[in-house]
Amino acid sequence: MPVGLSEPENLLPVRGLRLAAHASGIKRNGADDVVLLELCEGANAAAVFTQNAFCAAPVVIAKKHLLQNTPRALIINSGNANAGTGKQGLLAAGKSCDAVAGRLGCRSDQVLPFSTGVIGEPLPVDKLENAIPALADSLAEDNWLVAARGIMTTDTIAKAVSSQVSVGGETITITGMAKGSGMICPNMATMLAYVATDARIDNEKLQGILHGVIEKSFNAITVDGDTSTNDACVLISTGESAIDVDPDNSEFMAALESVFTHLAQAIIRDGEGASKFVSVVVEQAGTASEAKQVAYTIAHSPLVKTALFASDPNWGRILAAVGRAGIESLDIDKVDIYLDDVCIVEQGARASSYTEEAGQRVMDQQELTIRVSMGRGGESATVWTSDLSHEYVRINAEYRT
Amino acid sequence: MPVGLSEPENLLPVRGLRLAAHASGIKRNGADDVVLLELCEGANAAAVFTQNAFCAAPVVIAKKHLLQNTPRALIINSGNANAGTGKQGLLAAGKSCDAVAGRLGCRSDQVLPFSTGVIGEPLPVDKLENAIPALADSLAEDNWLVAARGIMTTDTIAKAVSSQVSVGGETITITGMAKGSGMICPNMATMLAYVATDARIDNEKLQGILHGVIEKSFNAITVDGDTSTNDACVLISTGESAIDVDPDNSEFMAALESVFTHLAQAIIRDGEGASKFVSVVVEQAGTASEAKQVAYTIAHSPLVKTALFASDPNWGRILAAVGRAGIESLDIDKVDIYLDDVCIVEQGARASSYTEEAGQRVMDQQELTIRVSMGRGGESATVWTSDLSHEYVRINAEYRT
Repeated sequence: MPVGLSEPENLLPVRGLRLAAHASGIKRNGADDVVLLELCEGANAAAVFTQNAFCAAPVVIAKKHLLQNTPRALIINSGNANAGTGKQGLLAAGKSCDAVAGRLGCRSDQVLPFSTGVIGEPLPVDKLENAIPALADSLAEDNWLVAARGIMTTDTIAKAVSSQVSVGGETITITGMAKGSGMICPNMATMLAYVATDARIDNEKLQGILHGVIEKSFNAITVDGDTSTNDACVLISTGESAIDVDPDNSEFMAALESVFTHLAQAIIRDGEGASKFVSVVVEQAGTASEAKQVAYTIAHSPLVKTALFASDPNWGRILAAVGRAGIESLDIDKVDIYLDDVCIVEQGARASSYTEEAGQRVMDQQELTIRVSMGRGGESATVWTSDLSHEYVRINAEYRT
Repeated sequence: MPVGLSEPENLLPVRGLRLAAHASGIKRNGADDVVLLELCEGANAAAVFTQNAFCAAPVVIAKKHLLQNTPRALIINSGNANAGTGKQGLLAAGKSCDAVAGRLGCRSDQVLPFSTGVIGEPLPVDKLENAIPALADSLAEDNWLVAARGIMTTDTIAKAVSSQVSVGGETITITGMAKGSGMICPNMATMLAYVATDARIDNEKLQGILHGVIEKSFNAITVDGDTSTNDACVLISTGESAIDVDPDNSEFMAALESVFTHLAQAIIRDGEGASKFVSVVVEQAGTASEAKQVAYTIAHSPLVKTALFASDPNWGRILAAVGRAGIESLDIDKVDIYLDDVCIVEQGARASSYTEEAGQRVMDQQELTIRVSMGRGGESATVWTSDLSHEYVRINAEYRT
């Protein structure tokens, strides 16, 4: 059961973007497993990809195509990551682009391929190719929900959201979808996420906007510290509204950030085995990267995560994680730690006001904040994470069975 | 059930070192929880401690006492870590030294205190003080096994071993004990480990020897990546054999290393919830630290560890861990990965000779080796780890209940 997350509702079409999903047979359970996105003429797309050295074949091809041409279509399969598959994998990813290009009447390098699922098994590209005609026939602007479902793997719920903002009296729409549940510790990218707007944004600005919003959304979450081979995040501007927007438009940026943050948090709320949604906030750090380092050390600690699962206010484990985060010359006497509003550590030792009951009250909640004040400066960072439960072990022990 | 580890047998006394254990009531289950070690006049001791910035009160006191004087006694309690306890914790650790010094007739700064157990609860030092007379009365050279049991926390089995070596026609004895099962990712130290020899080794050489043997034993293991606040490892030379030994004596060093390696591996074999003992070997790395970085990234990955628990040859997770280890300019086409003798990844992609059956055969074993060949140079590293099981989650979710 995801934590505080229900089925997406009221998803708004983005003019200039059509979507479709189809069950090609890659997934054994017969669910939709191939998704096609078609972009209108004149649309721009920016993307970031996994920093994992073993990036998957579709990531290699998508990066190459983005350098060569302006995308007109995205082809996404779930159930197979096409990673660790060598030259055959690259050929398969290329073939899937060829098939889409042939059907939609564009060049092969105008198609970006994406895959997610089991690593190291050959992609059954014939199944994917066979699905293209049916996908092309069912493309529609109001297919966001079926597309969001079609990219799911171990996700238990579809993740998508819309936002609208008024710019110069005209309404701009932003809609996005994402998938991801395990192997989540994005690094300059996420699992798969696609956000589109009908605002008109030039390509250079679009890339800058994407890098900016990702840092505080998909690059601020972790389920298990494992960065995937297939992470990708794409931001599309169709321009169909004919409204020009740039990063200085604070209302548009706030709406865009809210979509990114919703999707990133949705991945954590549906994190494998998650029974809690936890915000880790580190304040008064010397640098932003130091703040993030401490936040991630807490968020990755199996001992902190099992204590969260057990609703056990075993705050010594949080303190131990701060202590091993590798912060140079950390003055522990300046460190305070809070569970929501309850001070648990004051000047490096158990707070005199702390009671087990107060800690227990916070820990019993489904959502809570661990806040660390470092007493070193004015920088801060927030990371969202889930707990480590029996269910996480079960899901990942049984993943391929 | 520990993996390939049974109760210690044939533990040999080390002349000049007497031990005792007693149940003081710190542990709720009535088991022994205070251990006293008495060193003869003229003995030397070297120690390394946790690198966690939040080091426990006894670590602070033990470091101070080691700088001031030559130790005559070690007082160790289990069941309470006396960490995150501020000034009261330092006072309690000091009091325990005073009590031992008063009874044994030495100075307080000749006593080193150690604690292990729950973090953040006040140490009931009165219980510890009350135990000192009984401990002093039962000191004996052949008490290694009861001492090894007395320092246990979540350990399911005592960890101790002896070795003998002939130097100049005389027999030198080395005996050691350790405890540790969770919060295991030592950094220049371990959980608690005590190794003693009757060889005569001057203090400076002893410290050098300890740092050397630790790097390939206690600094090469991980259960969960969590470095404790209380890690400590002590090497004692009583000198009672009157045989001088230095680091150039390869036979002595080999015997000493075998004791350290046995104890470090024993911690992994008894790792919380461990059902597998896994060696991660990284070869052909550019530097030794790069080799260790890759080995630890694999050993820490929750996805690799749950696949090990499930005996699932999901080698894509190993490949993904190598890829995210942060190795600069990694040429994935030069990376080979093996499960024991089975090549799973060849030149960065699934080996053509690989079959799921061959991978399964290795994964079904209780002990196995993951070997990564980087194709970058001549350096290597080995790290030992356990799997991530339901039992790990259960133990750590229920730790304080």
